[in-house]
Amino acid sequence: MSQPSPEHQPERSWRQRWYEVIFEADTPAGKLFDVVLLMAILLSVLAVMLESVEDIRETHSLMLGRAEWFFTILFTIEYVARVLCAPRPLRYVFSFYGVVDLLAIVPTYLGALLAGSRPLAVIRALRLLRAFRIFKLGHMLSEAGALRKAIWASRAKVAVFLSFVLISVVIVGSAMHVIEGPEPGFESIPQSMYWAVVTMTTVGYGDVSPKSPLGKTLAAVMMVLGYSFIIVPTGIVTAELTQVSGKKITTQVCPECMKEGHDADASHCKFCGGRL
Amino acid sequence: MSQPSPEHQPERSWRQRWYEVIFEADTPAGKLFDVVLLMAILLSVLAVMLESVEDIRETHSLMLGRAEWFFTILFTIEYVARVLCAPRPLRYVFSFYGVVDLLAIVPTYLGALLAGSRPLAVIRALRLLRAFRIFKLGHMLSEAGALRKAIWASRAKVAVFLSFVLISVVIVGSAMHVIEGPEPGFESIPQSMYWAVVTMTTVGYGDVSPKSPLGKTLAAVMMVLGYSFIIVPTGIVTAELTQVSGKKITTQVCPECMKEGHDADASHCKFCGGRL
Amino acid sequence: MSQPSPEHQPERSWRQRWYEVIFEADTPAGKLFDVVLLMAILLSVLAVMLESVEDIRETHSLMLGRAEWFFTILFTIEYVARVLCAPRPLRYVFSFYGVVDLLAIVPTYLGALLAGSRPLAVIRALRLLRAFRIFKLGHMLSEAGALRKAIWASRAKVAVFLSFVLISVVIVGSAMHVIEGPEPGFESIPQSMYWAVVTMTTVGYGDVSPKSPLGKTLAAVMMVLGYSFIIVPTGIVTAELTQVSGKKITTQVCPECMKEGHDADASHCKFCGGRL
Amino acid sequence: MSQPSPEHQPERSWRQRWYEVIFEADTPAGKLFDVVLLMAILLSVLAVMLESVEDIRETHSLMLGRAEWFFTILFTIEYVARVLCAPRPLRYVFSFYGVVDLLAIVPTYLGALLAGSRPLAVIRALRLLRAFRIFKLGHMLSEAGALRKAIWASRAKVAVFLSFVLISVVIVGSAMHVIEGPEPGFESIPQSMYWAVVTMTTVGYGDVSPKSPLGKTLAAVMMVLGYSFIIVPTGIVTAELTQVSGKKITTQVCPECMKEGHDADASHCKFCGGRL
Repeated sequence: MSQPSPEHQPERSWRQRWYEVIFEADTPAGKLFDVVLLMAILLSVLAVMLESVEDIRETHSLMLGRAEWFFTILFTIEYVARVLCAPRPLRYVFSFYGVVDLLAIVPTYLGALLAGSRPLAVIRALRLLRAFRIFKLGHMLSEAGALRKAIWASRAKVAVFLSFVLISVVIVGSAMHVIEGPEPGFESIPQSMYWAVVTMTTVGYGDVSPKSPLGKTLAAVMMVLGYSFIIVPTGIVTAELTQVSGKKITTQVCPECMKEGHDADASHCKFCGGRL
Repeated sequence: MSQPSPEHQPERSWRQRWYEVIFEADTPAGKLFDVVLLMAILLSVLAVMLESVEDIRETHSLMLGRAEWFFTILFTIEYVARVLCAPRPLRYVFSFYGVVDLLAIVPTYLGALLAGSRPLAVIRALRLLRAFRIFKLGHMLSEAGALRKAIWASRAKVAVFLSFVLISVVIVGSAMHVIEGPEPGFESIPQSMYWAVVTMTTVGYGDVSPKSPLGKTLAAVMMVLGYSFIIVPTGIVTAELTQVSGKKITTQVCPECMKEGHDADASHCKFCGGRL
Repeated sequence: MSQPSPEHQPERSWRQRWYEVIFEADTPAGKLFDVVLLMAILLSVLAVMLESVEDIRETHSLMLGRAEWFFTILFTIEYVARVLCAPRPLRYVFSFYGVVDLLAIVPTYLGALLAGSRPLAVIRALRLLRAFRIFKLGHMLSEAGALRKAIWASRAKVAVFLSFVLISVVIVGSAMHVIEGPEPGFESIPQSMYWAVVTMTTVGYGDVSPKSPLGKTLAAVMMVLGYSFIIVPTGIVTAELTQVSGKKITTQVCPECMKEGHDADASHCKFCGGRL
Repeated sequence: MSQPSPEHQPERSWRQRWYEVIFEADTPAGKLFDVVLLMAILLSVLAVMLESVEDIRETHSLMLGRAEWFFTILFTIEYVARVLCAPRPLRYVFSFYGVVDLLAIVPTYLGALLAGSRPLAVIRALRLLRAFRIFKLGHMLSEAGALRKAIWASRAKVAVFLSFVLISVVIVGSAMHVIEGPEPGFESIPQSMYWAVVTMTTVGYGDVSPKSPLGKTLAAVMMVLGYSFIIVPTGIVTAELTQVSGKKITTQVCPECMKEGHDADASHCKFCGGRL
């Protein structure tokens, strides 16, 4: 069922040629397509960013608006092409990249109806993640794979840890709300929790800071203890990373389920069992 | 002495059934009880947090007050049940969870007498620590166990280290008090010590900052040296964590001493020797 | 020459008994002496800190002044006793602890002549380092020894690293001085260097921050690169610490050169060769 | 071709003697030259820094101006000497140190024409990197080499990582621009991206901070996630550093290609194959 029957060979062959250009980066044509696409994404993100600056928006309004629509239409055509030539269109549509590709074009169309939604078009910056497929592809993917593995292996420790952090934020935030009382920035528990996060992550804006001696003392104790919130997870991830050793991973995308990250010696997709 | 005599068998069997539901999470009933309890804790923490926001308190005063009392009475019943069915009630009452369970219900009763003590009810957030017993229990507990072991193993190094930090805070704080003199934020040694902690932990609110050239120079030197206050303990904990290897730990609570963290293959409590 | 001749035996024995009580912590009398001393140090540091708070100074002036003089005279007697019973008084006087012991009593005497020098008396907080000799002595010292060894082993890497940091601070500070020009906080290169240190250490008071778009861009680049100023030395120290394994170290002080940190199986001082 | 022919022997010998003094630090004369040079560099950097402070510039204008020109002419003579005695002058001119040596003298000459460019002369601080050739040379260089190797080995992981950071900054910055709208500091996407960098690096000036509850919530989530931006690269570099072991490296500079970092037992340059 996952293999098209022989009588579709001609049509499949047409699709397959396009598939290799659009989805993969192993052939010269595929590489060129991806490089051009990356440039377009970078330029379109830049256009959205510039448009948000008032001075530039006022003086180059027309040009930026045209660029915006040019890229949106380009990406729309690309999206349709991807859907058409993917062996299993629905799998692509609901894959991570499929959703991102759609989200990248929606805000501009929405912007014609709803004011203020156009800056959301920067979500297309997520499409830049495709870059890993192009530059030093296999190598970098394998690095990303090692990273992902190490983070995944330490997920339980990190979860335990995050729970402690969250519970600490709730309790310290409440204590400061009780201590500092009507002081601005501590009027409610959620406000105090915001302060607790800003302090424990050592960001320390200073827009909210304790005024009473007791509050300052509690804050100082919390800061010193807050060290452990950097120290412990660093230790956890580092310990994992020293144990994980990178395996070579190819840039191939499974034609069945659109997932990446297959080992170089794999002949079937490790997620759906489809042939690569 | 730690085993009830045979003639109490019927009563013990009633207690034991309840004990398994309330204290453990290995049976379906026990799991259900813990999940419902967790939801109740989460909702009650949320209610206390919302009540502290003035706008919400004014518009939903009645509903929040009722929720507060509902959860408090629920937790009171649960607390009494725990005391009743624990084989050794006093051990439970003075165990970590026993104290937390009591602290979780006291503030509401106190709040009826003393204004302002109700936000303390968020201490019931500590009860969320029970969550580790429910989700991926054994696995997560074993992770937490590995963490605890690594931190415990490095306690001496961390103690040595914290002493250096505290002594540095005292001395740098005093030096800045002498240098910056009557500058706001450096009026006394404790005030300057608060600044020293804020600076050395890299929180840096900016509510207090040196103004004189000499003070700025000393602060800059302290910041660069302050790096070591992140670097060194990170190294210590990481070095320990790479050496500690996780052992499997079950979710069973010792019926004798109420302690958790037993190895999966243990048949007796490692703290009190009681049968698990 | 390092061994007193036999005819001095009686006098040496009197000195030696005192020596064991005052300098060592292995006998009950020595331990008691050190614990009492620690309490006195803690109380005297607390007295100096409280005296610097204006409200307390005004209401308890007499009592704090008396406490100050009581502790100073106590420490003076102790200092004289140490000098008298040390086998080589000059070695003690010029050892680290000897200098600290002297600095701990000088500010109060000076304070009678020079106003404002009394807060310097907190330098006696450094005397708290003696605590390591008392609580879990051997164990903790061995930990501190492992730490010292790891930091010492990575001193060259850290020196290379600190040079890069300093050169970066000079160059980035100058660049910001040129870019931000007359903006407050960037009026001169030293001022800009202060800003660079505050930013690169992620303290970020906010008393000085770039205003121009170019300055903000450079600052953002510097912040991201500044990460490496935490990451790299952490890696260096951690890598060393995973390799250093703690050796047991005793609390014995060499009677010849007053140095600590000897291995448990050492029979001669590793610094001066004297018999332990 | 890389070896001068025999008939140039006398001239080459003159060059070579100078070469050893100016470029190397293995002979007493070479060491003396480098130490004097370092002092000159330090003094000239100090002079530029002092000149930027208005009070000092006004009172010591003449002296600082003279020092500036004295050092510039000194460095110009040194630069010319280096070009003259290098076996391959162009290689030196375009090597890292050659470019730095030129940049160190240009700003003063430019300053005679263009006001405001003189502070750029601090770029000569980069010349201090030569210090590694002098103090504990071989040893430190080998440390720097181990560092460079570890950072180089983890370059792919770091690149993957930096991409995630940049994409996060773009997307979070845009989201905050949409949420906080006309709030000062969030008027445009680039402004919001500046805030995102300041926050994620935990610098947290506080010159820009979210005001709306939704903005504060997003900021808090970003801060907690931002932890991973310290934790993950620290783990990566540390894991590499524990694997890289330092090899001994000499201070010799290859006379052919002007590159440093050769192993102690090397007899030919590892970059160009020339005799050392």
